[in-house]
Amino acid sequence: MESIEELTKNWKEQNLILPIWLEGQHLKVVNQLKLPLQEEIIEVQSVEQLADIIRSMTLRGSGAIGISGAYGILLAAYLSKGCKETIKEAGQLLKSTRPTAVNLMKTVDELLAYAAKLPDDEVIAGIEEKVVEILKKQLDYERALGAYGAELITDGDTILTHCHSGALAGSGYGGRALSVIRTAWEQGKNIHVFTSETRPYLQGARITAYELQKFGIPHTLITDGMSGYLMKLGKIQKVVVGSDRVAANGDLLNKVGTYMHALSAKDNGIPFYTATSSHTVDFSLKEGMNIGVEYRNSEEVTHLNGQPITLAETNAVYPSFDVTPNHLISGIITEKGVILPEYKKNLTALNESKEG
Amino acid sequence: MESIEELTKNWKEQNLILPIWLEGQHLKVVNQLKLPLQEEIIEVQSVEQLADIIRSMTLRGSGAIGISGAYGILLAAYLSKGCKETIKEAGQLLKSTRPTAVNLMKTVDELLAYAAKLPDDEVIAGIEEKVVEILKKQLDYERALGAYGAELITDGDTILTHCHSGALAGSGYGGRALSVIRTAWEQGKNIHVFTSETRPYLQGARITAYELQKFGIPHTLITDGMSGYLMKLGKIQKVVVGSDRVAANGDLLNKVGTYMHALSAKDNGIPFYTATSSHTVDFSLKEGMNIGVEYRNSEEVTHLNGQPITLAETNAVYPSFDVTPNHLISGIITEKGVILPEYKKNLTALNESKEG
Repeated sequence: MESIEELTKNWKEQNLILPIWLEGQHLKVVNQLKLPLQEEIIEVQSVEQLADIIRSMTLRGSGAIGISGAYGILLAAYLSKGCKETIKEAGQLLKSTRPTAVNLMKTVDELLAYAAKLPDDEVIAGIEEKVVEILKKQLDYERALGAYGAELITDGDTILTHCHSGALAGSGYGGRALSVIRTAWEQGKNIHVFTSETRPYLQGARITAYELQKFGIPHTLITDGMSGYLMKLGKIQKVVVGSDRVAANGDLLNKVGTYMHALSAKDNGIPFYTATSSHTVDFSLKEGMNIGVEYRNSEEVTHLNGQPITLAETNAVYPSFDVTPNHLISGIITEKGVILPEYKKNLTALNESKEG
Repeated sequence: MESIEELTKNWKEQNLILPIWLEGQHLKVVNQLKLPLQEEIIEVQSVEQLADIIRSMTLRGSGAIGISGAYGILLAAYLSKGCKETIKEAGQLLKSTRPTAVNLMKTVDELLAYAAKLPDDEVIAGIEEKVVEILKKQLDYERALGAYGAELITDGDTILTHCHSGALAGSGYGGRALSVIRTAWEQGKNIHVFTSETRPYLQGARITAYELQKFGIPHTLITDGMSGYLMKLGKIQKVVVGSDRVAANGDLLNKVGTYMHALSAKDNGIPFYTATSSHTVDFSLKEGMNIGVEYRNSEEVTHLNGQPITLAETNAVYPSFDVTPNHLISGIITEKGVILPEYKKNLTALNESKEG
C-alpha cells in the first residue's frame, strides 16, 4: 500500500490539480475564491479552520469536500495524537459545515466508524491508511467516469461545459465533467472546449478555464447567453456538465443556466450529457421540480469583484441551481457506465445493482 | 408648431429620459458608458465630437442615433451660421460613424435634402423646424408602438426583457421594448419587470435597470442564464425584447442571449414578443441565419470594468447578436400594429401598406 506521502507525490506527477493535500503533518488547501488571478495556498492549522474553509466555499465540489472530511479527521488525529474523542468531535464539526453534502457525511461517518474500532496505538496509522484508500477510490471513480464519458466524445468535437465540475472539485484529476473531457484529450482526441462563464459567480471563467489551461486543453470562454447561437452556427458538437443532484426520473439539478444550455442543445440536435456519480442520484426525489429553490445572496448578481454593476436601489435574485427535465438529457454518465433513457427504469436498475 | 426649446421643456416634464438635447445652441448628451453609477452629461462642442460620441457608443440605440444625426446637422448649421456646404460635410461625417444604422442614414439624408432647398437666410430656422418634426415623429412612433404592445400585457404580468431597448435608445419615452412596458404601466397595469443583465456589456444591469428605476416601474435584475428556471417556476408571463433587425420571414436578430430566452419561453408556453419598427424589417434578408456573425472585442468577455475575470491566456469570443427563428416569436410589435404569424405573408403586407 502506498503511504500518503507517496500518493501525493505520484498524483502531482500525474498532473493532478489537488484541492487539498498533506505536507508532513500539515494540510494545504488551494484558495478557490482567489483563482485564477492568485494561486494562494492556505496552510491549515486546525480542524476549525478547515471547517471555515469548507463553509466559505474556499474549497468546494462534492468530491473535494468528501476528501477534505477525510483529511480533517486525519488532522484531528495528528493534533490530538490519536485521541478518539477529539477525532469524533472533529467529525461532527466537519459534517456540520455543509449539511447537504452527501459525500462528506458518508466519508466522515465511514472513517469515524473505522477509527472507533482501531486499537489506541494504531489510530493514526490506521486513519492514514484509510485516507489513502478514500483518496484512491475518488481518483478511481473519476477515471472510470472519464473513460465511460470519453466514449461519447468524437475526435474533432467542440464540447460546451457550464460552471465548474473539475479537478479542484474532486481528487484533482477532473472531477466529473472535466474527467470526461480530460480522458478524451488524453486518448489523443483533438477537442476544443467552450466554457461558459457562469454568472453570477463566474466559476466557468475562473476555475474551469484555469484547469483547462493547466491541462493544456484548447478552450474558449463564452458568456452564458452565447451557447445557443454558437450551436446554431455549428460550433458545438457535445454538451457535458456536472450535476448537483439527479432525481429518480433523471431530471438534473445543476448550476443555474444549465437548463437553457440543454434547451439550446435540443433545438440544435446536439447531445447533452451530465457527468455524475451513481451516489448522486436521489431516489427520494421523484422529479426535479419537487425540490425548493435555493436562493443565494443577490449581491453576487448586483456586484462583481465588490464593485456594483447596477444602481444601489436595484434588487436582484440568485436562484443557485435550475432543473433540466429528463427529456433534454441524452445520457447520464456515471462511474458504472452511461445511463440512457428511459431513466426511471434504468436508474432504478443501477440502484439495485449497487445495492446487490 | 412648437419651438425646439418648448419641445425639450415639454418632454422633460413628461418624464422622458432624453439621450440628447439642446440648451440654447449647445448640444448635451448623456454618457451612456458611465451609467448608472455616474450620470455624466457631455457638452458637445463640434460635429466631430458628436461623431466620436456615436462611434464610441457613448450614445447608442437606433432611434437615439437617428435623432443625433438630426441634432448634428443643426449643430453644424449653428456653428457655420447656415453654410450649406459645411452642413453637407457634417452629414457625411455623421453617416460614416455607424454605416449600418439605417435610421441615421435616412434621417440625415432627409434633412440634407430639405436643407439644400432652403433659401440661404432660412437655413437655420428651417432645419430647426425640421428637427422638431423628426423628434416628434420618433416620439409618436414610440407611443404608437407602446400602445399596440401594451394591449398584449395583462394586469399582474411579470415581463422579461433583455439588453437595453429603452428611452435612451430612442426619443426618451421608452424606445422599443420599454415603450411597451412603460405604456402598460401608465395604463395602470400592475406589472413587474425582470431585466437580464446581458453579458458581456451589461446593458440590462446598467441602462435598463436605470430607466426602470427612473420610471418607477418595479423590477428585478437577473443573470442571462436564469430566465428559463424562473419561467419554470411560473414567475414570468411575457417576454418583450427589442430588435436589431427582422428578416423577411420574421427571424429576429437581436443582442446575443435573446435566442435562449425565446427557447425558454417556448418550452414554458410563455409568449415572446419583439418590439420593432416597420422600417427595421429587412426584406432583402430572407432568413436570419443568412447574415454573417459580427464578432466584437473579446476583452469585453474576459474583463469587467477593466479587471480580468479569467487568466490572461484564456481566449474568448463575443458574437454581438444572435438569431431567434420565427417559430419562437409570438408576435412582432410595430408602430402599425402587432404582426402575427405567418410572418412572411404578413410582413410583406405591412411593407406594401407602407409603400402604398
